[in-house]
Amino acid sequence: MTQAVVGASSERVLLARIRARLGETPSWLRVGIGDDAAIIEPPRNAAEAITTDSLVEGVHFDRTFVPADAIGHRALAVNLSDLAAMGAAPRGATLSLMLPADLPLDDFDALLGGFDRLARTHNVTLVGGNLSQSPGPLVVDVMAFGTVHRRKVLTRAGARPGDAVYVSGTLGAARAGLSACRAQVTGIASSKDGPGPVEASVRDRYLRPEPRVRLGMLLGRTGTATACMDLSDGLADALDQVSVASGVGMNIDADRIPVDEATRSWFSHHDGASIDAALTGGDDYELLFTVPPRRRGRLRGVARLMRNLPLTQIGTVTRGQGVRLVRAGREEPLPRGFSHFAGE
Amino acid sequence: MTQAVVGASSERVLLARIRARLGETPSWLRVGIGDDAAIIEPPRNAAEAITTDSLVEGVHFDRTFVPADAIGHRALAVNLSDLAAMGAAPRGATLSLMLPADLPLDDFDALLGGFDRLARTHNVTLVGGNLSQSPGPLVVDVMAFGTVHRRKVLTRAGARPGDAVYVSGTLGAARAGLSACRAQVTGIASSKDGPGPVEASVRDRYLRPEPRVRLGMLLGRTGTATACMDLSDGLADALDQVSVASGVGMNIDADRIPVDEATRSWFSHHDGASIDAALTGGDDYELLFTVPPRRRGRLRGVARLMRNLPLTQIGTVTRGQGVRLVRAGREEPLPRGFSHFAGE
Repeated sequence: MTQAVVGASSERVLLARIRARLGETPSWLRVGIGDDAAIIEPPRNAAEAITTDSLVEGVHFDRTFVPADAIGHRALAVNLSDLAAMGAAPRGATLSLMLPADLPLDDFDALLGGFDRLARTHNVTLVGGNLSQSPGPLVVDVMAFGTVHRRKVLTRAGARPGDAVYVSGTLGAARAGLSACRAQVTGIASSKDGPGPVEASVRDRYLRPEPRVRLGMLLGRTGTATACMDLSDGLADALDQVSVASGVGMNIDADRIPVDEATRSWFSHHDGASIDAALTGGDDYELLFTVPPRRRGRLRGVARLMRNLPLTQIGTVTRGQGVRLVRAGREEPLPRGFSHFAGE
Repeated sequence: MTQAVVGASSERVLLARIRARLGETPSWLRVGIGDDAAIIEPPRNAAEAITTDSLVEGVHFDRTFVPADAIGHRALAVNLSDLAAMGAAPRGATLSLMLPADLPLDDFDALLGGFDRLARTHNVTLVGGNLSQSPGPLVVDVMAFGTVHRRKVLTRAGARPGDAVYVSGTLGAARAGLSACRAQVTGIASSKDGPGPVEASVRDRYLRPEPRVRLGMLLGRTGTATACMDLSDGLADALDQVSVASGVGMNIDADRIPVDEATRSWFSHHDGASIDAALTGGDDYELLFTVPPRRRGRLRGVARLMRNLPLTQIGTVTRGQGVRLVRAGREEPLPRGFSHFAGE
């Protein structure tokens, strides 16, 4: 029996499968999927945040080890992470799919399922999108929008000398997870660890990153953070971007960068330094943010609300410019961030 | 000398080329390109229209005969056409580019140029986007947004029995243009016509469609149209969609469908029926709209403001359902619309 593929399905059939997943229409959505454009009621007394990010097969994921539901999850997660970094509450999204003709219909459904589950978690409504065939890679392009109070917007440009530099969660796990996924495909993993809890833990961090939606909103609403950015392109890149945008320098203590046990364990068995993964791994969707000394009390309040999510100070904002990274007492150059283009 | 390609350029260099084209920042754009998300001031006393559409190489265009500036133009035009169909005034857009490594830098610049020229014409501000490499086709995904008065939104669902059915402009030219572009590549065209004015005229209609932004806004604001849709997937598809969405039937007189001289001339020399191109050609970005008899006066006012753009009645909305197409006095089945998926 041959497997059903999207190339043999009509656009109407595929659209019907998307519509079947739509939940209740929120009151702010005047016209949803099915017309030339969506019509939404803009937020009252708030600004709007808009972001777009895409996942391209062969560049951002490998279908041989990234399950379709994880592709759908990540495509939305990377966008929600961008909204979180601005302090915005997500509202809606559009989904553009470019589908290889041989994509199994089951994978199409699983991709929608992964997108949909994360959307429901964060109260995100799908308002539109489009379907196209792709003569090459599977491409998932998402635009997400949300609301943010005008005076509570977090940008990269607000860091001031004396602020403490924080990161949420633990870093490097996504890079370990990518490595674990690859090892699983080539059969290397089982020879060393078997598919143990370490592997499962880091793989999930790579495949289904949890966007820090609530943290971003809290950091913004409470006026705790002066600057914020997500770590989509790695910590080193984020440190560089925030320091340049804010016109400040930073002293970063590499030994304070939080790395969890599973990640340390993975790299200790697989010839890698977990701290390098934490600095340059491009798939940690944690937040980098800066907090002035007088707002430490607010940060403690945020931390209490975030319960088990660690918020770790890794350095300090300074006058001047440039990021000074100190590791085991010695200053080191900041590694280059992640880039999909060759020249960088 | 080898040609510079995007794959050898850093993302920063490519981003700098995009930023260099940005015009003045409008007052409603609080945070533009360069942060995790754009922050915009939503319209006051109006709803917001949001749409997204993508162009995929090998599906929607062929780089061997579509110049890069036309790719940029069309990627924005198809989205502005969707906003026009809702009666919305465009405001901003995001641009996601998935670039083959071997794409010449000159083509990258030309693509941006085509996008930018059309954006300036319609006062559209680029607020964000992203760049990725593509291991396959060039993909251009655009999201556009605009504003529309709450009670002036045009949908596909408002047509009522007795309304007259209109189309803007002339149809079939884009299909003739696509055919002319292909003929040029294979060398067929020059053997028959040479690159004459007919060819140039229809090719431009395919390559650089003019979205009916002003017409859509006028039809909405003046309360002239009851339903509206753009012809991105062909007239036959649009007639079907509007009649289904509105729960009405339609009588369409194929002989009244407006086809311009260049298109007739092209098809008379190239074994094709211009009326078939007008019905099923997927790249005419004209508007289909319905007007009640009591609003004909308003339509005349709109027509005067649109000056040289023909607005042609091609039929009438009826009770019941289904589109009855009459051609040379005989009823014919409505041809199927354009689809990029095989099953349809």
